[in-house]
Amino acid sequence: MKKKVSILGSTGSIGTQSLDVISRYPELYTVEALSAGSNIELLAEQARVHRPKKVSVATKELADRIRGELPPGIELSFGEQGLIEIAAHNDADFVITALVGSQGLKPTLAAIDAGKQIGLANKETLVSAGHLVTALAKQRGVSLLPIDSEHSAIFQCLNGEPRAAVRKITLTASGGSFRDRSREELAGVTVEDALKHPNWSMGAKITIDSATMVNKGLEVMEAHWLFDLSYNQIEVLIHPESIIHSYVEFNDHSIIAQMGNPDMRVPIQYALTYPDRIASPTEPLNLARLGTLHFREMDYDRFPLLRMAFEAGRAGGSAPTVYNAANEAAVARFLRGGIPFLAIEAIIEEVLSRHDTIHEPQLDEIFACDAWARKEAAAWHK
Amino acid sequence: MKKKVSILGSTGSIGTQSLDVISRYPELYTVEALSAGSNIELLAEQARVHRPKKVSVATKELADRIRGELPPGIELSFGEQGLIEIAAHNDADFVITALVGSQGLKPTLAAIDAGKQIGLANKETLVSAGHLVTALAKQRGVSLLPIDSEHSAIFQCLNGEPRAAVRKITLTASGGSFRDRSREELAGVTVEDALKHPNWSMGAKITIDSATMVNKGLEVMEAHWLFDLSYNQIEVLIHPESIIHSYVEFNDHSIIAQMGNPDMRVPIQYALTYPDRIASPTEPLNLARLGTLHFREMDYDRFPLLRMAFEAGRAGGSAPTVYNAANEAAVARFLRGGIPFLAIEAIIEEVLSRHDTIHEPQLDEIFACDAWARKEAAAWHK
Repeated sequence: MKKKVSILGSTGSIGTQSLDVISRYPELYTVEALSAGSNIELLAEQARVHRPKKVSVATKELADRIRGELPPGIELSFGEQGLIEIAAHNDADFVITALVGSQGLKPTLAAIDAGKQIGLANKETLVSAGHLVTALAKQRGVSLLPIDSEHSAIFQCLNGEPRAAVRKITLTASGGSFRDRSREELAGVTVEDALKHPNWSMGAKITIDSATMVNKGLEVMEAHWLFDLSYNQIEVLIHPESIIHSYVEFNDHSIIAQMGNPDMRVPIQYALTYPDRIASPTEPLNLARLGTLHFREMDYDRFPLLRMAFEAGRAGGSAPTVYNAANEAAVARFLRGGIPFLAIEAIIEEVLSRHDTIHEPQLDEIFACDAWARKEAAAWHK
Repeated sequence: MKKKVSILGSTGSIGTQSLDVISRYPELYTVEALSAGSNIELLAEQARVHRPKKVSVATKELADRIRGELPPGIELSFGEQGLIEIAAHNDADFVITALVGSQGLKPTLAAIDAGKQIGLANKETLVSAGHLVTALAKQRGVSLLPIDSEHSAIFQCLNGEPRAAVRKITLTASGGSFRDRSREELAGVTVEDALKHPNWSMGAKITIDSATMVNKGLEVMEAHWLFDLSYNQIEVLIHPESIIHSYVEFNDHSIIAQMGNPDMRVPIQYALTYPDRIASPTEPLNLARLGTLHFREMDYDRFPLLRMAFEAGRAGGSAPTVYNAANEAAVARFLRGGIPFLAIEAIIEEVLSRHDTIHEPQLDEIFACDAWARKEAAAWHK
């Protein structure tokens, strides 16, 4: 039987690559529902090609504009309720959550509550509300299948292994666009500079997060929840080539690593086919052609936002929510050209320092902390 | 309940490291029986420390010499029948076959026939009689747990994975003692030069086999049988640091690799604890400290014996037996100082060229081919 797939965020980088994977296996997958933000031209095209039963866009205005472009019979919705429609109120077996930022939380919870398997590309969901999300997934018997390349790597490395034997995991980090620049050189970098990622083709926000190492910080927190590990069991290693996507060290000091060329279609497809594997259109890895792989220790002085991520993660409760929300607001300001690159750090540090952590926060408290941190970050000035 | 372990070849490199592993977990393992060749001083000491029920040595003379050195109550035997006693006629649950060369075949078959699980460090067993050994293991429900680091790596990488999804495996090769010498420079190398392996501490024969790449050739044939792969699915890659011990590529182009510092106690212990893992006294891998891993394509002109191994493997039947036996005889001549290093190649090539392959050979035919090849190799002169 074909697997019915919904995609939250179908016009973004993960969304379009997910549709690329799905379209190669029409005998295995059908598209049930798609949500997009404001890229209605692309969403309309996706709807014509994949014929979902439902689509959703960010606002009523966008919905009014796309209506005439959609094939007949497709149900259209918008806003937060639209996301919930695509996440939960349909026949999908599998929901890919590829929204950017903490807006992914409510629809992901709705999808889990509806018993749908989750392909998780929205890491902020676990960062902000890991205790609620993992508890609900357990209660509903829902699998959270990671789509991030690092978490997919760890997930693959754990296949068939005794979980109690895990000593630690290592997330690799390319180092982002500014890996080889000193902190002094970071002061004057532009938005354009920051958007040139060396290995991965990704959206703007995650590319900035790679340059600040916030992306790795969010991944550390996500790994904590996905794999039930303490922060002492999670390490980060700089590996400029992004070939070893991450690895697990067991208590016998044997390491299992997952490798490949950087191509998000591999982890996307693996989440869809797990525990099976099927052929892939991606380029196989040729280590001899690469010749060399490099590794160096993470420098927590060079990348203080990763250090702060570990601190926020260890503090727990609402601290990761605040870390993430302050970052989202700060990155938005940087992308609009409103603040210098290093102000992202200053903002997150200051907002975190003013926050009193709430332990085991409920959903409304998480949203309140999230909103407070955004407001603080938006108001920040030197 | 404690696992009772017998070791065939207890005084060699794998044998002593196996006893090192076992002695760290007295609550998990007891030593049931030990066999050695002529190192009776070490065997006597091992018997005093580990208190096996049976020991065996190569000849009656050696048995007479060791008798007075053994603790009371230990049953002593010798010769081929002695090996069979240690392999099969005892209460062992698990037999580590760490004999060097094709002498390992009969006792390994006896151990499998007696229903004992096998920790396979004697690769010539599968090279010479893979079709008989794997068939008997299947019939008796016996697991063949690889102890070679490369095969243990592949075995670990396959944990929890769909076997039909394996696209190919890659065995890594350090390149041996003469990796960076041209063929011209190989003409005058000495036995002493050849015994300096860059990464692994091993016995003399396997160190020479690493320098000629015969060791990798035998590993290719062993992998063919252990993992039921065609020779087209097996590749060899030069990786000087021996950190990635080998890897599996699946049909989605995801690669699972096993890594670690080169230390045979990890694969030995894994064979004993499989499918579980327990703490290890070995040094954990620190990739940042290493900094760089190198890879380059195998050069089949530089290492013609690896090309011949693939040819012998593809020819099948008795060809691998002849390849292996000719090599054993040639290496023995080289180690005695009787022939130059490059004559090992010349001997194997010539003996193979004079052999008419027998398909699906029975055990007596295998032994006849083995004896014929040794005689030819011993008689070879330029």
